[in-house]
Amino acid sequence: MSVARLTQEECSEALADLPDWALARDGSAIFRKFEFGDFIEAFGFMTGVALLAEKADHHPEWFNVYNRVEITLTTHDADGLSQRDIAMAKAIEALL
Amino acid sequence: MSVARLTQEECSEALADLPDWALARDGSAIFRKFEFGDFIEAFGFMTGVALLAEKADHHPEWFNVYNRVEITLTTHDADGLSQRDIAMAKAIEALL
Repeated sequence: MSVARLTQEECSEALADLPDWALARDGSAIFRKFEFGDFIEAFGFMTGVALLAEKADHHPEWFNVYNRVEITLTTHDADGLSQRDIAMAKAIEALL
Repeated sequence: MSVARLTQEECSEALADLPDWALARDGSAIFRKFEFGDFIEAFGFMTGVALLAEKADHHPEWFNVYNRVEITLTTHDADGLSQRDIAMAKAIEALL
């Protein structure tokens, strides 16, 4: 199923609500770094994100080392950012 | 606590037992890519690795997107590869 790619204006509007996220990959993705107290906290957070991602069938590209997690969200079907990325970023923020 | 860095000979010997792992970062790390059927399988595997890593207090640098997982192991205290990386790689293999 194809998903609408956000316009530049829609991206700006969405990111205003997500101050810790930044555009990445020429505007086709959003990115945030997270830092936790230790690996248990970091992986606990990742487990929460994994459950959200599987439920939404929208999966992050992410990296972890010890207490650091880096998440990139993009929508391959939209060849860029879609509302699904914004919704996922907001759901991730709500976990914190 | 400092950990002994493996000699080149010890690295070659250890990697002979880990045919799917390759040296990375000028020999200071080992690396393997994994591919699963879907995200549930991939994150299930990651959860197993996380438990091993926390138990051994030796944490991977890793990346995941959907069904793919990429793991890099290195020992910061040894400024390169140590026996701890080899033990972790073998424990990860045993999960599969």
